Amino acid sequence: MSFVGELADRILGGQAPIVIGLDPRLSALPERLLPGAAPAARIVAFYRESLPVLARYAPAVKPNIAFFEAYGADGYRAYEEVCKLAHENDLLVVGDIKRGDIGSTAEAYAEGHFRMADSLTLHPYLGGDSVAPFLKWCPRSGGGRGVFVLVRTSNPGAQDLQDLVVDSEPLCDRVARAVNAWGAGLEQEHGYHAVGAVVGATWPAELARLRRLLPNSWLLIPGVGAQGGKVEDLSVAFDDRGLGALINQSRGIMQCFAPSNEDWLDRVEHACSTFATECRAVAVPTR
Amino acid sequence: MSFVGELADRILGGQAPIVIGLDPRLSALPERLLPGAAPAARIVAFYRESLPVLARYAPAVKPNIAFFEAYGADGYRAYEEVCKLAHENDLLVVGDIKRGDIGSTAEAYAEGHFRMADSLTLHPYLGGDSVAPFLKWCPRSGGGRGVFVLVRTSNPGAQDLQDLVVDSEPLCDRVARAVNAWGAGLEQEHGYHAVGAVVGATWPAELARLRRLLPNSWLLIPGVGAQGGKVEDLSVAFDDRGLGALINQSRGIMQCFAPSNEDWLDRVEHACSTFATECRAVAVPTR
Repeated sequence: MSFVGELADRILGGQAPIVIGLDPRLSALPERLLPGAAPAARIVAFYRESLPVLARYAPAVKPNIAFFEAYGADGYRAYEEVCKLAHENDLLVVGDIKRGDIGSTAEAYAEGHFRMADSLTLHPYLGGDSVAPFLKWCPRSGGGRGVFVLVRTSNPGAQDLQDLVVDSEPLCDRVARAVNAWGAGLEQEHGYHAVGAVVGATWPAELARLRRLLPNSWLLIPGVGAQGGKVEDLSVAFDDRGLGALINQSRGIMQCFAPSNEDWLDRVEHACSTFATECRAVAVPTR
Repeated sequence: MSFVGELADRILGGQAPIVIGLDPRLSALPERLLPGAAPAARIVAFYRESLPVLARYAPAVKPNIAFFEAYGADGYRAYEEVCKLAHENDLLVVGDIKRGDIGSTAEAYAEGHFRMADSLTLHPYLGGDSVAPFLKWCPRSGGGRGVFVLVRTSNPGAQDLQDLVVDSEPLCDRVARAVNAWGAGLEQEHGYHAVGAVVGATWPAELARLRRLLPNSWLLIPGVGAQGGKVEDLSVAFDDRGLGALINQSRGIMQCFAPSNEDWLDRVEHACSTFATECRAVAVPTR
């Protein structure tokens, strides 16, 4: 089974088209979990308790490795453990690593990171030969992994470069065309290949346009909640089966409680369940 | 003291304008060093022996974290140790991490990585607010760190996006203008601020143009040697004091021997010394 095949099957089976972002911040962890322990241990304990709950509503989680790297090698070990715990809970893992380097170096990244994650986020700026080493892992015969290339990011600064006009269209559209071409040779499952794209929920007009430019790519959509994106603007990202996009939420679920709340896990479950219902309705309005 | 100030002082004091890339590959390590030990231990042993030799010729080293991450958390720990060993040998550290994420996430990367390295390589695609959190660490009062933003990369695929034409100039030129603007408010030492740029040695025509667009930026120049760039093409990168650019070499020095060579360290020293002489001559032809 491949990442994109498994994802489609889970959503067709009734799971919501969502992915929960894991961006651990020490100041936002429940106080009662290993108070006084080292940061990495507290982070792992937090996800050990919460991943089984997330797995009831979400097909996948997206740990952002930056928040783990903030704690050095111990944090990196915690990232590995969280990926492992996610898999033990039958969750797919989108490793939000945003790497991008020349070919020989990209091989080293792919080797290290596809051991931990089912799919990875990548930078496009170095071009096709920086992405190619990851694509070897994408066909089912190659391990069935997936990638999401940054096309239109959710931050305000996205406009600085991504809106530059190239041949009368924004650069992000050109990057989308490149992403579409990089995936063109790969096998498809349920109409989608393994080369996806990151498109921020904070840019609904761009989302509609990029959806058309990327007809066979899964879209990973961050930026809902704290960053201002709205779920109700995202229906255009989905096909009529409710496939083709994964809406991410991080802080709105994993930081929906105060550290002193004894019932923090109930709150996480409620937030996750609500988010799943909301996204399922937007993905398949008639269901 | 700041990274750019220290760099300039060392080069004005007679050191060569070079940085040695540390891209550990197990198959290229000396056989006699801890045979049978774990990868991370072998990597650290290699640099423990070679860094004191590199420090005789180079002001800085550039570990590429991808080759460490290939070995997971143990490799990450080795990266931390190699940065520490480099500092113990009085070498400046350019952390070749090529990160780039939205503002709040970039803060986490800066916090983790500026603990280990004096300067970092960054992706430009997310724009100014993805770089800003790193710039807080750059003034002397902020810790005196530095960054090198990817402008023109050394790989063939650089052409895919970096040559797209924006307002009758290539995208990489527009990125250079952005990098120049991001550094404009920062203090300068010897005429350079802390926002540098990566420009591949494999593109000599682009190098001359980008040098003009980035008059106050240190250029980090990879791609010499195995990738085909030539040191003799790089004189345009330097000002008349021999400042303004750092030429990187990785495989040509750190893999200049066969694993079975007993005299591997002598070979590394010879290669590094030759490279230093060659680059010094190109930087200041009249010296």
